[in-house]
Amino acid sequence: MTTRITDLFAIRYPIIQAGMVWCSGHRLAAAVSNSGGLGLIGAGSMKPELLAEHIRECRRETTNPFGVNIPLIRGDVVRLIETALEEGVGIIFTSAGNPALHLERIKRSGALLIHVVASVRHALKAESVGVDAVVAEGFEAGGHNGLDEITTLCLVPQVADAVKVPVIAAGGIADGRGMAAALALGASGVQVGTRFAATVESSAHQHFKNAVVAAADSDTILTLKSLTPARLIKNPFALEARRAENAGASVEAMRELLGTKRERRGIFEGDLEGGELEAGQSSGLVHEILPAAEVVARMMAEYHKAVARLAGMARPA
Amino acid sequence: MTTRITDLFAIRYPIIQAGMVWCSGHRLAAAVSNSGGLGLIGAGSMKPELLAEHIRECRRETTNPFGVNIPLIRGDVVRLIETALEEGVGIIFTSAGNPALHLERIKRSGALLIHVVASVRHALKAESVGVDAVVAEGFEAGGHNGLDEITTLCLVPQVADAVKVPVIAAGGIADGRGMAAALALGASGVQVGTRFAATVESSAHQHFKNAVVAAADSDTILTLKSLTPARLIKNPFALEARRAENAGASVEAMRELLGTKRERRGIFEGDLEGGELEAGQSSGLVHEILPAAEVVARMMAEYHKAVARLAGMARPA
Repeated sequence: MTTRITDLFAIRYPIIQAGMVWCSGHRLAAAVSNSGGLGLIGAGSMKPELLAEHIRECRRETTNPFGVNIPLIRGDVVRLIETALEEGVGIIFTSAGNPALHLERIKRSGALLIHVVASVRHALKAESVGVDAVVAEGFEAGGHNGLDEITTLCLVPQVADAVKVPVIAAGGIADGRGMAAALALGASGVQVGTRFAATVESSAHQHFKNAVVAAADSDTILTLKSLTPARLIKNPFALEARRAENAGASVEAMRELLGTKRERRGIFEGDLEGGELEAGQSSGLVHEILPAAEVVARMMAEYHKAVARLAGMARPA
Repeated sequence: MTTRITDLFAIRYPIIQAGMVWCSGHRLAAAVSNSGGLGLIGAGSMKPELLAEHIRECRRETTNPFGVNIPLIRGDVVRLIETALEEGVGIIFTSAGNPALHLERIKRSGALLIHVVASVRHALKAESVGVDAVVAEGFEAGGHNGLDEITTLCLVPQVADAVKVPVIAAGGIADGRGMAAALALGASGVQVGTRFAATVESSAHQHFKNAVVAAADSDTILTLKSLTPARLIKNPFALEARRAENAGASVEAMRELLGTKRERRGIFEGDLEGGELEAGQSSGLVHEILPAAEVVARMMAEYHKAVARLAGMARPA
């Protein structure tokens, strides 16, 4: 395939595996990059030293391009970025913060900078500071989420109309039909999280992967809205958070309820009761745990089928 | 075009104009049907006598098929259905309730019954009672909304996988890109509300139409969640409702805050401060008030352009 995103990253298919805490280490990123997509190492759950190890491992496992996702809310964000650049990573995805603060350092090294946004306003801001592309991520996405609750279907065409840089659609895309939909809306690529979180190469706990597979269409909720909104599988912790929220709990009470390391408990340790199980609404489209390469191959086959279906309909009766 | 939905309704394009309170009388429905789509008279804001008048007027204005949308929460729902059938309407869309209670009467008259759903569970239930098609309506849709907050992008493929009847996608679709996306996801047609609410033929107040045009991507919210969740343009009333909700207001307090006839105030009387301004997230994609025929023509042109773009990308580099 040929899109602005395949050109930008020099990849075969415009499928980007989202950088996800506790899921996307070198194994997953390398598997996706070896399959023709773009794998991202998720630095959100790594200290700089560990990130460096994952980058080196990933380079041993693939000769194709891969990237690193760095959440800008991390206290040690500067060291994480330095680490990625020193290790020679040429593609940096950032989220949850202001990319302007790090742009000069990243561009000086020659790396590409792609920023995740959840509104037209933030897309315009990211473009104005000089990012190379934006990820437009909708309300249906798993994990941390925007404040405006704009869905991928509404966000992508509005962002595509507003900016000149290429747009990557994220949130709710788990198969080739979703990929075709996103590209029809004006995106030049897709970022897929949940589907890859439940692959063989994901470092998530087996219990977490099973929970993604078991989840139906209505089994995730957006909660923790007064802190950072997060989409979670509806487990006892998520439901408790929502109850507190609906009863008007204060920010302090919500912070206490959340505590620390809940994501680790849920995703990495497999605590299905008390952990945060970050996953998107597309969990309902995930029916089995496959190798990442098989996910990429199926997405492409489904994509071509969806495009052929559209072409068939477009023919007058 | 040829899809299961153009075949079912004997229409030229798989574009259905949503039945909307205070917007979609005979003028709008006839204009859409004359343009090759399917117009729906929205009975939600009509007494049976007025509905009968609108049906007769619509028949004078078009020889093409049109339908009626009936919200099943109405106290006089049986009389509304009887009125539509006695006036010879062959296409009934129902929402917000259980279609099983009315199916026998509708099918006895030979009319088609299409039900609006917001989850896979409700789609399966509607299919099991014998509806002819389902509308899968996502979280981004304007006005009354489902409890599970499933977006169109995630809902449509899951519903399409679950049922055998044709699926119409609704929520967030305001142009031909959205239409191509919906059909790629597995829908056979689209239902478009907000875009048609802001047309010349819509009976909404000019202030309301202007508010839809002025709204950006993040200018609607889902509120009144403890009553019936509704997506509204963020005006003083909507923000007050959200504040009360976030502070843990009781159902009774929310009911009192809402009062009665707020929709009429907002949409028909143009009270932009105190009225309910029911509109979808796709408001951000609506930039001008056009005749309905022009909306249909542009959607089709945009649709073909989106399909051509996809076909171009699908070609290997």
